Amino acid sequence: MREPPNPIRLGMVGGGRDAFIGAVHRTAARLDDNFHLVAGALSSTPDKALASAADLGLPRGYGSWEEMLERERALPESERIEAVSVVTPNHLHFPVAKAFAEAGFHVICDKPLVHTSVQARELTRIVAEKGLVFGVTYNYTGYPMVREARRLVHDGAIGRVRKVIVEYNQGWLATRLEATGDNKQSQWRTDPERSGIGGAIGDIGSHAENLVSTITGLELDSLCADLTTFVPGRELDDDANLLLRFEGGARGILTVSQIEVGEENDLRIRVYGETGSLTWHQEDPNRLVHKTLDGPARLLTRGNGYLGAAATAATRIPAGHPEAFLEAFANVYAGIADAIRGVDGADYPTVVDGARGVAFIESTVQSAGSDAKWTPMRPVTR
Amino acid sequence: MREPPNPIRLGMVGGGRDAFIGAVHRTAARLDDNFHLVAGALSSTPDKALASAADLGLPRGYGSWEEMLERERALPESERIEAVSVVTPNHLHFPVAKAFAEAGFHVICDKPLVHTSVQARELTRIVAEKGLVFGVTYNYTGYPMVREARRLVHDGAIGRVRKVIVEYNQGWLATRLEATGDNKQSQWRTDPERSGIGGAIGDIGSHAENLVSTITGLELDSLCADLTTFVPGRELDDDANLLLRFEGGARGILTVSQIEVGEENDLRIRVYGETGSLTWHQEDPNRLVHKTLDGPARLLTRGNGYLGAAATAATRIPAGHPEAFLEAFANVYAGIADAIRGVDGADYPTVVDGARGVAFIESTVQSAGSDAKWTPMRPVTR
Amino acid sequence: MREPPNPIRLGMVGGGRDAFIGAVHRTAARLDDNFHLVAGALSSTPDKALASAADLGLPRGYGSWEEMLERERALPESERIEAVSVVTPNHLHFPVAKAFAEAGFHVICDKPLVHTSVQARELTRIVAEKGLVFGVTYNYTGYPMVREARRLVHDGAIGRVRKVIVEYNQGWLATRLEATGDNKQSQWRTDPERSGIGGAIGDIGSHAENLVSTITGLELDSLCADLTTFVPGRELDDDANLLLRFEGGARGILTVSQIEVGEENDLRIRVYGETGSLTWHQEDPNRLVHKTLDGPARLLTRGNGYLGAAATAATRIPAGHPEAFLEAFANVYAGIADAIRGVDGADYPTVVDGARGVAFIESTVQSAGSDAKWTPMRPVTR
Amino acid sequence: MREPPNPIRLGMVGGGRDAFIGAVHRTAARLDDNFHLVAGALSSTPDKALASAADLGLPRGYGSWEEMLERERALPESERIEAVSVVTPNHLHFPVAKAFAEAGFHVICDKPLVHTSVQARELTRIVAEKGLVFGVTYNYTGYPMVREARRLVHDGAIGRVRKVIVEYNQGWLATRLEATGDNKQSQWRTDPERSGIGGAIGDIGSHAENLVSTITGLELDSLCADLTTFVPGRELDDDANLLLRFEGGARGILTVSQIEVGEENDLRIRVYGETGSLTWHQEDPNRLVHKTLDGPARLLTRGNGYLGAAATAATRIPAGHPEAFLEAFANVYAGIADAIRGVDGADYPTVVDGARGVAFIESTVQSAGSDAKWTPMRPVTR
Repeated sequence: MREPPNPIRLGMVGGGRDAFIGAVHRTAARLDDNFHLVAGALSSTPDKALASAADLGLPRGYGSWEEMLERERALPESERIEAVSVVTPNHLHFPVAKAFAEAGFHVICDKPLVHTSVQARELTRIVAEKGLVFGVTYNYTGYPMVREARRLVHDGAIGRVRKVIVEYNQGWLATRLEATGDNKQSQWRTDPERSGIGGAIGDIGSHAENLVSTITGLELDSLCADLTTFVPGRELDDDANLLLRFEGGARGILTVSQIEVGEENDLRIRVYGETGSLTWHQEDPNRLVHKTLDGPARLLTRGNGYLGAAATAATRIPAGHPEAFLEAFANVYAGIADAIRGVDGADYPTVVDGARGVAFIESTVQSAGSDAKWTPMRPVTR
Repeated sequence: MREPPNPIRLGMVGGGRDAFIGAVHRTAARLDDNFHLVAGALSSTPDKALASAADLGLPRGYGSWEEMLERERALPESERIEAVSVVTPNHLHFPVAKAFAEAGFHVICDKPLVHTSVQARELTRIVAEKGLVFGVTYNYTGYPMVREARRLVHDGAIGRVRKVIVEYNQGWLATRLEATGDNKQSQWRTDPERSGIGGAIGDIGSHAENLVSTITGLELDSLCADLTTFVPGRELDDDANLLLRFEGGARGILTVSQIEVGEENDLRIRVYGETGSLTWHQEDPNRLVHKTLDGPARLLTRGNGYLGAAATAATRIPAGHPEAFLEAFANVYAGIADAIRGVDGADYPTVVDGARGVAFIESTVQSAGSDAKWTPMRPVTR
Repeated sequence: MREPPNPIRLGMVGGGRDAFIGAVHRTAARLDDNFHLVAGALSSTPDKALASAADLGLPRGYGSWEEMLERERALPESERIEAVSVVTPNHLHFPVAKAFAEAGFHVICDKPLVHTSVQARELTRIVAEKGLVFGVTYNYTGYPMVREARRLVHDGAIGRVRKVIVEYNQGWLATRLEATGDNKQSQWRTDPERSGIGGAIGDIGSHAENLVSTITGLELDSLCADLTTFVPGRELDDDANLLLRFEGGARGILTVSQIEVGEENDLRIRVYGETGSLTWHQEDPNRLVHKTLDGPARLLTRGNGYLGAAATAATRIPAGHPEAFLEAFANVYAGIADAIRGVDGADYPTVVDGARGVAFIESTVQSAGSDAKWTPMRPVTR
Repeated sequence: MREPPNPIRLGMVGGGRDAFIGAVHRTAARLDDNFHLVAGALSSTPDKALASAADLGLPRGYGSWEEMLERERALPESERIEAVSVVTPNHLHFPVAKAFAEAGFHVICDKPLVHTSVQARELTRIVAEKGLVFGVTYNYTGYPMVREARRLVHDGAIGRVRKVIVEYNQGWLATRLEATGDNKQSQWRTDPERSGIGGAIGDIGSHAENLVSTITGLELDSLCADLTTFVPGRELDDDANLLLRFEGGARGILTVSQIEVGEENDLRIRVYGETGSLTWHQEDPNRLVHKTLDGPARLLTRGNGYLGAAATAATRIPAGHPEAFLEAFANVYAGIADAIRGVDGADYPTVVDGARGVAFIESTVQSAGSDAKWTPMRPVTR
């Protein structure tokens, strides 16, 4: 268990009353005592922002992120926040992350990173120029068994990758939840102004894309997308099915949906190589199945000595004592903390991973509107 | 348990020494005592055909199917075979089935039905003209829980269908097994002369297509296919990924592969409707998961009183006493026997289902060679 | 697939209209074409016996087993039955099996073998004197993965056995089904006259005991039993919980029940040795989990090349094409057929296994009525 | 997500370097921001205690619990700790908890509570007299689906309980790990001086007993135990098998082991009532299976609207986003925090639950040494 003695001072933008993901970020930041949340502009409505800060007993609550930026910069270095978590709806990621990065603060930003590749490129540039840490909370990469899968592919345990099947099945938007008036999560996620050009493909397709990239290291060459809006009155896609072609010849399927009735948070990946395969399922995250050309399937479970260093470092408690979503999220925060502290090999998704996600969403939407079978994947700035 | 007193006299073409599926058909025919196998031309090599018949103690072994046809026709009606099972490699399905059908014998034929839609149309015509029973052994339709899924969709238990995900994952051809010299199954299946234009898409894609058609009743409107041959030296596809569009607006994913290392016979289907969903998995065939907009998932298991009539009729033994592949295969034979006996509502896949499969394979191969995103599904003669 | 050319001529006692297990035996006998059922006295009521035989189109139907015995003995050796299957309620096992064995017929008898150890000893003696084959249909031993478990224990894959947990959970008698008047299965099974001194412990506890014996080869030293009748008005136990001590120091738990609401046919066994463990579950019979001191769990599946000879011999179709209850039952019949044909190493449960089951039931009932903690297991004649 | 503004000031005794459970308690205390750890005497070795406190950056590190007690009492009420967590090896639970309780601090103590019923009675008395909160960290009761199971039993969803099967399977002590010299966890747990009279039965049997008590509310009437020490040289039991009889006629099986090779932390419970049953498994904690006399099994999953208030209150994130061991542990801490804050209906295991566990261990050890079949459960002071 990591419990470092000097937590990093953290600020937060977004995540106040009625928000969901803010509390997840706070818990993830706190779980290993890597960060202390000391400041926040938790809502775009000043009164609500201040009330939300008071709810949490935050030392420094602000009415807006602009105020927070100005006031924190004015504090002595030993007091002011060292990093900021941006957990607003998507459309605010860019202005907030940009402003804090330009001011020299490390940034933790939820996904998808920004609305456009142009914005992603600008953030990437600033981060490089300022020498900052910029983490994107592709939280599923924090699961130990995802890290073990990445290691096994990298170490050749399944040979050269031939095929990937990645799925992210949800059902919570099978009806027009956003029209019921009291579900903030569904409202902004189905609103192009706040969510961007992708619906399901942006919200969860980005996770699926990143999971493939993280585990296999493959680069997308081109894709063929069919985006559908099943629920009448909705503007963005709520279902997406893609054929994938990777550089080097691997093939793939990516399917994500938010209208699959009864599915909860069913993110799955299967990676097939020339000599083996791997299967992982987010709802059963402590297991990883490794199959080979001969011999029985091997059922790897979190917490055992036969696992690699990255999986082990991401594990707090023994095998059979399950760890889950919040612990994985905390592992991403821990990796970012490592990076801020200058630890070598800090393990977390970067702004480039975020930019890749944006390029993927843009390429997918372009393909969906095209009669051409294959749409090239847009280039990603590094 | 069905154990009718007067079994139907059956002949078989193909299925001799070294064959696999012949013994499966014989077991399926025998399991409920619906058929007695009395004649056979079990190989294309006369000596082997006769030896294979002797192995089994068949009353009447023949050296060729032509001889069998001629000699059986000459027998008195009370002695000659009533139906013939065609279990040869694919390229012989058409000539054999056509000849026996024209001679007035009922036909049971393995899938895929024939090589071309033209052939399928001809068979369909003959069957209609002669008033014959012609069953195609899409054996997975014989599983009780597949029949229950069909009933639930039909009865509206999941509302209008929006999306289908069907997969058939195998790994047995991940290496070039057909070049090892002693695996007959892999040899003819990877040979375009004997297998037809489809590799994996023909061999198991046809099962996947039929499973969707059986359960949902949806008609394919168009499809977008990516066929790949991963194993060097192989001529036919060993991996196929498709986007599907159905008449009426439903969408789908179909993925089949024979190079997914470690997968055995992993046929799965998920059907998502407006108000519910169904999940079934061939390797765990006695269960069917039914999810709804509210309430917990319902885990339906074979043999229980809450299931519909078709599932119940396809069940021999009580819940918890698993039935599996051979029993499902026998259910298809039982449905064909019912049809031959003139039972109302006999439940089995017909020549039209076979023809649909052929059209699907042709459409898929056409799409794979096309730069157009969507290829229309070819029409199916009824 | 076994399809021997010369099936053995079989007769059957019991298993007519309204019976369940008779049809299972007939299917098992027929599935591999090892036996042809040519004669039967299918009910204790002569009219029903004859009608049942007619239902099945049996060549020789008899009104009683006594008549069948007399008439078959009078037939020429090349026509008369070679073996008889006894599938009556338990109380008739002894007289029928004894009479046919004394007349020199091979016998296949359902479990539990007989009512008392005295009867078991007499049968054992006759079988030995006459040099007959006498198989007891402990059908779960026919599962390939049970045979693989037996091999792994025998070959030392888990080291010396320390602990066994065996369970057989059913729920079908959670209410007083036998009082509803139309369920023959529940009626005789809850009637001490027909079922013997054991209720659940006799009907399914005998399977559990035999599964332990088959896989581990351990001999019971003593046991401590708590038998309960939960359903008011029932005479025999419907729930049994036992602590087990084996010769050599291994310990065990055996729990069987017919009142566990919602359980279907949930037979499970776990065997823990000094260096590994095995887990098998009848409702998911194609898998066997093998765990070791180090390394990930190994998931063995039926049909693969890494399995031993006994599992492979009991397998008809490839991995991923599940085989189940009827195939396992047929494997027991196949082993008995091997024995009748004089095949070396024929693999089937013998009259001694049946006698052990009777001793186990007697010891359990004795323990249940005793205040002593440990009751010695009764000796078994070999 | 609970994130109350005013965390409770917490001290800790035990849980320094080399300890395992201390970090778990700290994470659980911190996860929801219910507690701030401000003081600690983290080891029985003063130097190590101070160094461990420095590792964590604790505001007030002490060399011994006696010093901590004295110094904290001397602090102003607004600064001193409000509660203490006792996470030492078992033998120190009693003196530490007693001293802090007598001084008026709330106490959180790991299980098993103490070594003897006499000690348990004394603690119970002090707690009652002082009006303190005393929580025992039976952490598995913190799982939402355990609370749902408790609710369903209480609300009659399965009718009157007839039978319980509870298991806690582990394999980590299958070899003599305590003799390797560097595994502190195994050393004190196998040492009667520090662990008490129970080995596996004390360490994990107490969890199993408590889980039954929590979910069913049943009181043990008597039990029959077989305790075994399989690993040579070990003094305490490493395997325990029990038959249980409850007041009112229910029956049960309890089996716990630490020598079952390959098992990780496999705590399971099945509860069978007259009209339904429940199954829960700690390694898959977000699901609860509910079976009924008719109809398919219902698969309840954490985070859904159909669950009861207690499960919902113990849930932070949506369905499909799994919560696990640490979150369940944090739920116990949250319940204790509620109690300290005077919230009505605070949900946590009390000193009486702890006392029941001690009585259970004593009764089990007595039974294991007795030739009598049934040993009465010792009375529990309330």
